[in-house]
Amino acid sequence: MNKERISNVLTKLDGVDAVLVCDPIAIYYLCGKMLHAGERFLGLLLKRDKEPVLFLNILFPLKQIEGVKIVNYADGDDLCAMLSEYIKADEVLGIDKTMQARFLLPMQKYGLAKDYVDGSLAVDKTRAVKDEEELAYLRKSSQINDMAMARFKALIHEGVSEKEVADQTLAIYKELGAEGFSFPSIVAFGKNSADPHHMPDDTILKEGDAVLFDVGCTYKGYCSDMTRTFFYKHAPEGKRKEVYELVRKANEEATKKVKEGVRLCDIDKVARDIITDGGYGPYFTHRLGHFIGIEDHEYGDVSAAFKDLTEVNNVFSIEPGIYDPETLGCRIEDLVVVTKDSCEVLNSYPHDIEIIE
Amino acid sequence: MNKERISNVLTKLDGVDAVLVCDPIAIYYLCGKMLHAGERFLGLLLKRDKEPVLFLNILFPLKQIEGVKIVNYADGDDLCAMLSEYIKADEVLGIDKTMQARFLLPMQKYGLAKDYVDGSLAVDKTRAVKDEEELAYLRKSSQINDMAMARFKALIHEGVSEKEVADQTLAIYKELGAEGFSFPSIVAFGKNSADPHHMPDDTILKEGDAVLFDVGCTYKGYCSDMTRTFFYKHAPEGKRKEVYELVRKANEEATKKVKEGVRLCDIDKVARDIITDGGYGPYFTHRLGHFIGIEDHEYGDVSAAFKDLTEVNNVFSIEPGIYDPETLGCRIEDLVVVTKDSCEVLNSYPHDIEIIE
Repeated sequence: MNKERISNVLTKLDGVDAVLVCDPIAIYYLCGKMLHAGERFLGLLLKRDKEPVLFLNILFPLKQIEGVKIVNYADGDDLCAMLSEYIKADEVLGIDKTMQARFLLPMQKYGLAKDYVDGSLAVDKTRAVKDEEELAYLRKSSQINDMAMARFKALIHEGVSEKEVADQTLAIYKELGAEGFSFPSIVAFGKNSADPHHMPDDTILKEGDAVLFDVGCTYKGYCSDMTRTFFYKHAPEGKRKEVYELVRKANEEATKKVKEGVRLCDIDKVARDIITDGGYGPYFTHRLGHFIGIEDHEYGDVSAAFKDLTEVNNVFSIEPGIYDPETLGCRIEDLVVVTKDSCEVLNSYPHDIEIIE
Repeated sequence: MNKERISNVLTKLDGVDAVLVCDPIAIYYLCGKMLHAGERFLGLLLKRDKEPVLFLNILFPLKQIEGVKIVNYADGDDLCAMLSEYIKADEVLGIDKTMQARFLLPMQKYGLAKDYVDGSLAVDKTRAVKDEEELAYLRKSSQINDMAMARFKALIHEGVSEKEVADQTLAIYKELGAEGFSFPSIVAFGKNSADPHHMPDDTILKEGDAVLFDVGCTYKGYCSDMTRTFFYKHAPEGKRKEVYELVRKANEEATKKVKEGVRLCDIDKVARDIITDGGYGPYFTHRLGHFIGIEDHEYGDVSAAFKDLTEVNNVFSIEPGIYDPETLGCRIEDLVVVTKDSCEVLNSYPHDIEIIE
């Protein structure tokens, strides 16, 4: 287990006597073991001044985790009775936000605790501040992503389809030392780049198309995520060029705003104001960014609604976009790590307009 | 939407006034649309004599589903207030077993309903009986899997690793017309075949090894799942042959037991008794089978604990195994469809001992 991470969670418990963590990724983060219990119960109980307790079906053999008590159960055992040896009926229990009703409803019926509240914030806020080990993996993951982007660009040629390009990206990531995708690669040609949710299809590349790659891999379990928008054979001109430069400016100015103690909504605002002042406000239809780590999307937004202050070693994306089907769909995305006075940009792939010949 | 499936669910509602389905796969099954709302709320409310209502974040644009009322909400909207227009405070609400605590806890705090109970069984029991459209897809998916097995066998050669073989399986499925995996291919050489949870690693093939493939693909969203155990260069002899033949017999005799109205636990017993009588009971460490459809593992077990009766058009796996690291790890798995008097075996790949040269 990771003592420091667990003790960070415990200092953040607010109004609860214990938290029952169920999310396998959060358990991996805290204990260093990735356990997939499928439809069976999996829980890590954290209580101040007590040894963490992991409840695990006997089907998933795990001998030990240092510093964690493992309680095995079998199919058919009374889970609530088992849990009641560690949770008192007069305690307030923090419940993992991902705990499924199939477990929560029986606990409530049994009277396991006095009250049940969402207890995930303590874990989420701990995960939002990366430690050095995590930063090392995130840096490497984004380095691989930078190298991969250059390779992906070389897959673009006359007559190729989005799917054909996307289908080749996994092998390239693996060659470069990644384990796999952080999410399936998005490749969008022409008007498809104006759909921020576009999935690669049989669309064939045409001269003059924009070519958008939104791609990421994992390294030691940590995600990268980067977007670049290229142009096939013809440089963008007029309004198309204007849109590209606005998005680029929104990315770069928002990045300059990042440092410790800034409201995340204010970082979003820098990018949004630039795009709005440029006349494309209605075409920037999503938040500026999301936190990232073991998961591609973790707790924490760079959006108008998220007023928390940045902390040193928060890692999130800066990904402004303009999606105007009549002109251009374009997004430029990097990952950044918050530092005391500014930020470290994890992607080094340039933002310049690039023409693929 | 699929009127018949929805009306089947409604006839199965037991002690609840409505059921709020959240599982995207169940919603796909009932409405024909695969919606991924990520961490946002997604719900399909089913009530007798009322039009189904789908609650969907406005970020996921969906114009219409015939026969379903779509209620859009935006981030920040009061979900409980929205739901309370369709659910009365004195009603008992069936909750999807997969609904996350982040949604259930606020509903309970709001007082959305009088009581909350697990309402998934109505959907699960409907899904467990496949209709003709589903059977057609399941048949085709298993046909592809049969063809794929022959191709996978041809990947086996001197010096190859499990991972190298497993990495080539997806492309073969796609060539054969599948969309993708129903689960990542399991390839296990030698002693690794005695670990039922083994994931392909860098183990290199050796003469005399068992070669286990547990593989499946999807066709039109429907899963196949088959296991065969081959032998590299040397036929199994003595106890190894005995283990293989026991597993084969357990598979074939259990399959003969299948017809409408049999307790699922009794099908498990046929296979378990054969393996136990053969002296390998402790090495058959899992249930005989699981139900399958849009998901590789669906509600319904072929196990000692599952006493429900089979129904016509239930589809499940028959997969006895013996995992004796000193002798042999071996599993033989097929999918079957229950008929009135027997069953249709969806896999035609033979059970005979096969030596790969």
